[in-house]
Amino acid sequence: RSGEMAKLTQLLDNEAFRAYATYTTIVLLKMMLMSLITAYFRITRKAFANPEDTASFGKGENAKKYVRTDPDVERARRGHLNDLENIVPFLGIGLLYALSGPELSTALLHFRIFAGARIVHTLAYLIPLPQPSRGLSWAVGYAVTISMAYKVLKTTLYL
Amino acid sequence: RSGEMAKLTQLLDNEAFRAYATYTTIVLLKMMLMSLITAYFRITRKAFANPEDTASFGKGENAKKYVRTDPDVERARRGHLNDLENIVPFLGIGLLYALSGPELSTALLHFRIFAGARIVHTLAYLIPLPQPSRGLSWAVGYAVTISMAYKVLKTTLYL
Amino acid sequence: RSGEMAKLTQLLDNEAFRAYATYTTIVLLKMMLMSLITAYFRITRKAFANPEDTASFGKGENAKKYVRTDPDVERARRGHLNDLENIVPFLGIGLLYALSGPELSTALLHFRIFAGARIVHTLAYLIPLPQPSRGLSWAVGYAVTISMAYKVLKTTLYL
Repeated sequence: RSGEMAKLTQLLDNEAFRAYATYTTIVLLKMMLMSLITAYFRITRKAFANPEDTASFGKGENAKKYVRTDPDVERARRGHLNDLENIVPFLGIGLLYALSGPELSTALLHFRIFAGARIVHTLAYLIPLPQPSRGLSWAVGYAVTISMAYKVLKTTLYL
Repeated sequence: RSGEMAKLTQLLDNEAFRAYATYTTIVLLKMMLMSLITAYFRITRKAFANPEDTASFGKGENAKKYVRTDPDVERARRGHLNDLENIVPFLGIGLLYALSGPELSTALLHFRIFAGARIVHTLAYLIPLPQPSRGLSWAVGYAVTISMAYKVLKTTLYL
Repeated sequence: RSGEMAKLTQLLDNEAFRAYATYTTIVLLKMMLMSLITAYFRITRKAFANPEDTASFGKGENAKKYVRTDPDVERARRGHLNDLENIVPFLGIGLLYALSGPELSTALLHFRIFAGARIVHTLAYLIPLPQPSRGLSWAVGYAVTISMAYKVLKTTLYL
């Protein structure tokens, strides 16, 4: 069995695949950070989604008034959903791209720009920065994913 | 290192895996299209989620009135979220299914039906077509994913 | 081509990878179950998101009144979205972790705890159980994913 294990870990000897693993983990951790930011705003703004989350504020009407929406909470949630909408395609298309035998330098360029764009997008959403900061950072990540998808389809097309 | 690279790209010599790569890329691109459709409706209906997105319409109350919801925008967003809920399971279960050694013709059948069902689902949502068009297209994609999950668990079960 | 097919299926001979395949399929199926639970509440509570979904209740105002939100429907939808936010990182980071050559027993521990935590999270959300049940089960799944991400970055880091 050690022979198979060796073969498996060889996947991670491939540098383009290692780069994919590194940047995918970074952007997924960044996305996970959105949960903590939302929780932070929910607690500091006292704005919860579920009645059972407000039980520590007392009983009845006194607690129920904290089941409400808050602009900062909603902003963090929109940033989180935008991450899901854009990082899921990167996760899938990026994996196939990394397996399609790209030039290492080209692959690194794609992964680095995508990760940078998503970090800028989050900052632009949360601070918030004036437009078109958020729009542009979104478009850059989107374009990188389209570029990888083109390479995947060119390499693998099998309908 | 070229030996390893060769080994990696051999993954894409496997026809069932190539088919998975092709159809996954297609459905992820289709899902990404939902972002553009939402943006199109936001701009044409002047209905935005963030105050900073309306700055080009002037300052103060004049701009703030465009921070609102719109039925067409919400419809596109619901379609997008439904894609996430259904394409994420396809991404993960489909990958494991493609690695589980399925018959090529069976694999192609699964991938083609899933991709077709999701495209019909989007059309049914956006036009919109009368029910049960949307419900049925959703159910077909769901059933295909369950069928692949069954094959994966039968092949790999290791609890 | 049978040689390549054999090589591919060897990925599933690796026990840590088989365990990943099994637990990923389980948590994705659990996430898919949320769609059925939401549909169940939509139908029994008569609370729909789209006008075309209420056509069977008659025409005009009589049907339109069922386009509304309902607390049980919204609760199931929040549980579904929380699954997406947490299972997508597990899908990506778990795959890379399974490929990073972990000890089988350590890998199983991670996968089992994550799957258990997400099942408890769903029960805590839907019953609902008093806090901190839901918060703790969320945190356990989150911590497991961070632990796997640490192992992936330690093994693969390539910036």
